[in-house]
Amino acid sequence: MCQDRGCCHSCLHYVLDYETPKTLVIQSKAVGFVFRFTQLLVILYVVGYVCVVQKGYQETDSVISTVTTKVKGFAYSNTSDLEHRFWDVADYVIPPQGDHSFFVLTNIIVTPNQTQSRCPELPTPSSICTADCDCTEGHSDPRSNGIQTGLCVNYSDTQQTCEVLSWCPLEIDTNLPKHAMLAAAENFTVLIKNSVTYPKFKFHRRNIMPQINSSYLRRCEFNRITDPDCPIFRLKHIVSEAGEDFQSMAVKGGVLGILIDWSCDLDWWAGKCYPKYSFQRLDNKNPNNSVAPGYNFRFARYYKTPDGEETRTLIKGYGIRFDVIVFGTAGKFGIVPTIVNLGAALSFLSLVPAVSDWVMLTCARKKDLYNKHKVTYLNEDSDSESMAMGTSYGTQ
Amino acid sequence: MCQDRGCCHSCLHYVLDYETPKTLVIQSKAVGFVFRFTQLLVILYVVGYVCVVQKGYQETDSVISTVTTKVKGFAYSNTSDLEHRFWDVADYVIPPQGDHSFFVLTNIIVTPNQTQSRCPELPTPSSICTADCDCTEGHSDPRSNGIQTGLCVNYSDTQQTCEVLSWCPLEIDTNLPKHAMLAAAENFTVLIKNSVTYPKFKFHRRNIMPQINSSYLRRCEFNRITDPDCPIFRLKHIVSEAGEDFQSMAVKGGVLGILIDWSCDLDWWAGKCYPKYSFQRLDNKNPNNSVAPGYNFRFARYYKTPDGEETRTLIKGYGIRFDVIVFGTAGKFGIVPTIVNLGAALSFLSLVPAVSDWVMLTCARKKDLYNKHKVTYLNEDSDSESMAMGTSYGTQ
Amino acid sequence: MCQDRGCCHSCLHYVLDYETPKTLVIQSKAVGFVFRFTQLLVILYVVGYVCVVQKGYQETDSVISTVTTKVKGFAYSNTSDLEHRFWDVADYVIPPQGDHSFFVLTNIIVTPNQTQSRCPELPTPSSICTADCDCTEGHSDPRSNGIQTGLCVNYSDTQQTCEVLSWCPLEIDTNLPKHAMLAAAENFTVLIKNSVTYPKFKFHRRNIMPQINSSYLRRCEFNRITDPDCPIFRLKHIVSEAGEDFQSMAVKGGVLGILIDWSCDLDWWAGKCYPKYSFQRLDNKNPNNSVAPGYNFRFARYYKTPDGEETRTLIKGYGIRFDVIVFGTAGKFGIVPTIVNLGAALSFLSLVPAVSDWVMLTCARKKDLYNKHKVTYLNEDSDSESMAMGTSYGTQ
Repeated sequence: MCQDRGCCHSCLHYVLDYETPKTLVIQSKAVGFVFRFTQLLVILYVVGYVCVVQKGYQETDSVISTVTTKVKGFAYSNTSDLEHRFWDVADYVIPPQGDHSFFVLTNIIVTPNQTQSRCPELPTPSSICTADCDCTEGHSDPRSNGIQTGLCVNYSDTQQTCEVLSWCPLEIDTNLPKHAMLAAAENFTVLIKNSVTYPKFKFHRRNIMPQINSSYLRRCEFNRITDPDCPIFRLKHIVSEAGEDFQSMAVKGGVLGILIDWSCDLDWWAGKCYPKYSFQRLDNKNPNNSVAPGYNFRFARYYKTPDGEETRTLIKGYGIRFDVIVFGTAGKFGIVPTIVNLGAALSFLSLVPAVSDWVMLTCARKKDLYNKHKVTYLNEDSDSESMAMGTSYGTQ
Repeated sequence: MCQDRGCCHSCLHYVLDYETPKTLVIQSKAVGFVFRFTQLLVILYVVGYVCVVQKGYQETDSVISTVTTKVKGFAYSNTSDLEHRFWDVADYVIPPQGDHSFFVLTNIIVTPNQTQSRCPELPTPSSICTADCDCTEGHSDPRSNGIQTGLCVNYSDTQQTCEVLSWCPLEIDTNLPKHAMLAAAENFTVLIKNSVTYPKFKFHRRNIMPQINSSYLRRCEFNRITDPDCPIFRLKHIVSEAGEDFQSMAVKGGVLGILIDWSCDLDWWAGKCYPKYSFQRLDNKNPNNSVAPGYNFRFARYYKTPDGEETRTLIKGYGIRFDVIVFGTAGKFGIVPTIVNLGAALSFLSLVPAVSDWVMLTCARKKDLYNKHKVTYLNEDSDSESMAMGTSYGTQ
Repeated sequence: MCQDRGCCHSCLHYVLDYETPKTLVIQSKAVGFVFRFTQLLVILYVVGYVCVVQKGYQETDSVISTVTTKVKGFAYSNTSDLEHRFWDVADYVIPPQGDHSFFVLTNIIVTPNQTQSRCPELPTPSSICTADCDCTEGHSDPRSNGIQTGLCVNYSDTQQTCEVLSWCPLEIDTNLPKHAMLAAAENFTVLIKNSVTYPKFKFHRRNIMPQINSSYLRRCEFNRITDPDCPIFRLKHIVSEAGEDFQSMAVKGGVLGILIDWSCDLDWWAGKCYPKYSFQRLDNKNPNNSVAPGYNFRFARYYKTPDGEETRTLIKGYGIRFDVIVFGTAGKFGIVPTIVNLGAALSFLSLVPAVSDWVMLTCARKKDLYNKHKVTYLNEDSDSESMAMGTSYGTQ
């Protein structure tokens, strides 16, 4: 055509000529049905599964969360170690600030009145001695409790051990009370306030729902069935929902996760976005595969005697650390994932004609007829089109 | 063709025969324009929106962050409770370590010289008594402050309440100072050091930019307009940017988020990656829908009297907890998202011919002509091709 | 056809008529090879790179983690400030609970016996005075240490400074020990227990592998080559793997990240999911671009004198904060990303015929022949199909 209209037009022709495939319409209900059915399957799959079930059209954002916690309750212990003692929040919650991780003391080994001084080491194979020459001045074994002074002194009437420089008297942590000292801790309650933000969607929400009023909050207690929205949890309830027994866990301590799942679908009214609470023990119970099972740590309170000497009370505290773990992703309609998912769907739809063609040319009763009309074989040698299956096209 | 060249070649034929659609070129400017225009729209949409605006070609990574904070300032309180008292960082920042969450004490209720002993319960409907028989030994109401001893004693000249075993004297937390005791805390400053890592991209950066020198850091103060890069924030400024009043927030406390957004585009020079600070109150101000509004916690300081008795000072501290929340995603060119997004774009391009065909065969002036040449109807009954719209193809 | 069979059928026809492109099969090995080769390239790229290397078929989830840490070791300091002093875990680990961030004290400035009182300010240009009129009662400079009383008093025999109301005596923090007081801290060890959860995949795992037994754990120490699974780390080893020197870092403190990478492929047996430890200094060493380099914070221990007066020991503690940072994403086969990625692949395959056609019609030896048979030009003016390149189609 270029010669006819002039070469200056050829470029425009190239751009504006529209090339479209020649098509053959086959009026066969069978083939048409196969085609539509395959198309339907793909559409159902993509629309039904990817879009509806997996929400592929949504973009997502991760949660940002703040937690404050407040434990309530008191207890009275009457074990011999500490005589009779009353415990309140300031005593047993460590650290006191109440952020996303809080620790409730349930069992303790107390070593009061320690001073920087010298005392006999606890008897172990390496510390037992018979004379000063068994002890080396300045020696410190990481397994021991202090720096040896080089003297061998009486530990008890029958045993001599090397003297060490340390906080004396030494802590003897072998006789941990068999029953948790603060067994009453199971009835403590904790109020968890959690507010979350999805910054990408500018969505902000608290775990205390708008419909909940103050008077309900003052008396409610979380229960999965009767009070699923109450943010006040009884410790015993948390532990038992995690499949553990509070009293046995309280002896050696442990770590317990309070998981708050804020997975949200923000497309419709935001009321769909509720916290889901679950509870799970996070440390290992199995003593075969564990060092220092349970959960404990040592801390000290420092005092000064009237004459200015520093003393401390060393406390090895066992207890349950509660970690409030907030997670979740919010989804909301987004143009990019929608395009990507629709594009993928369209790709699959473009497979459908290939399937239908294959069925038509292979399985249909009139496959030869279809083949003859659809496909033209180009025989290069004779520079002529040869008909499919050698059938002549000349009748046309 | 198989018969001609031998069946051994048929497999090779199957692989190497190239099947290509027969096409019809329509030299109509209108149809060509519709085709090119639709194509352009799709390309503009995909390239312009998905790629440029939404950066669909990028893979993303979440931020890993470390924060250290350091508060500076001192204050002098002269309320009656604590006489005249000077406060410095070691007094009012709890916990002292300065990690991503720090608390500044602004108001307190102090109960000094508590000991483990017995004292009359605070008067409430359930604790007021007239005789010992109104009190039950060992009874402990979670709402009360201790374990009843079974005695009814004088609380004041006019009231009798049950005696309890507790830390005595009991805390009376009803008369919280109306004006925050540490009102001067609004002028405290906090230095926030934040370093972030995007592990997938091996990208590491600090919120103190390389071009900032020490002398600037010693005197600057964050201001969104004049000093947007200064990592030192005045507490009053933080609170007012969050839309709150420091003095009224200081009375009962609260939680304030310092949000640092590290959303980064790492494709070009990394200088595009700056922290963006914003401030937001995270707890609920609305007292109708809240338990324990504000933010406070109890902690104690333990002392020993010269004769070895333990006493404590109980402090109910109100104040503002500042949570430094670092979030963000970094994007960088990635081959997988690029392929996926380009693939989706290509799918949409494959829709364009369908649209053009529909326009050509439905709306164009010469639609019958186009139809006749493009589409062939196969009439199965007569085993012959019938032309579109019944027009004979034989004229050709 | 509508007129023939009745209009009620036309709709059914529209749905069930199957329109398929007429195709031309070209039996040219060259063209076929180009086609198959391009196809192979795309498939290799998509399958090989996107699927195998980048695991595009997986959906991902972010890790949720809990950490407990326990430091072991003791040290003996003999610097002049604190005389000879023995340090154990309760003394140098702050806070004591052992969560994901723990601080090991290595150097301190102690100011004992501070009381709320009056004392001369430290000499600075603004605090030096010669008479009372140089000092303003009630004035408090943020850079100073207290509130001026308006008096000018002797700081030393030669200097006079304004008197301030503060915790006196004031801390003098200029002469920090050049050698870290707790140099022995390099031999402390820390046990890190870490358990992770991928909530989307309900996958839970600990960093202490099932095959590890308690006796191994009691004696092992992490070493990248010999003991890569041991969760007990020597502090010196951590610091040196981060490329730092413990002793020089200990003087002014710093922040050190213990990064645990839990990137997991959960498709095959879960044993593929191991923690990978790495270590990195997180604060800035470069003093040119830093305020308050290193890491330190002030805390106080409060005492009461026998006559009830409150005193405190102020401690400015320098040390290394270890932040255990757990990150990672787990991937597992998911139907949505698979569909999306396959769809993208299919889109690219639909490009292949376009490429082959272009090669065939442009570069092939017989391109005119192919063009003639494949493409029909519709000459609208004469209402007839004109053959490609003006060749008549009539010979057919």
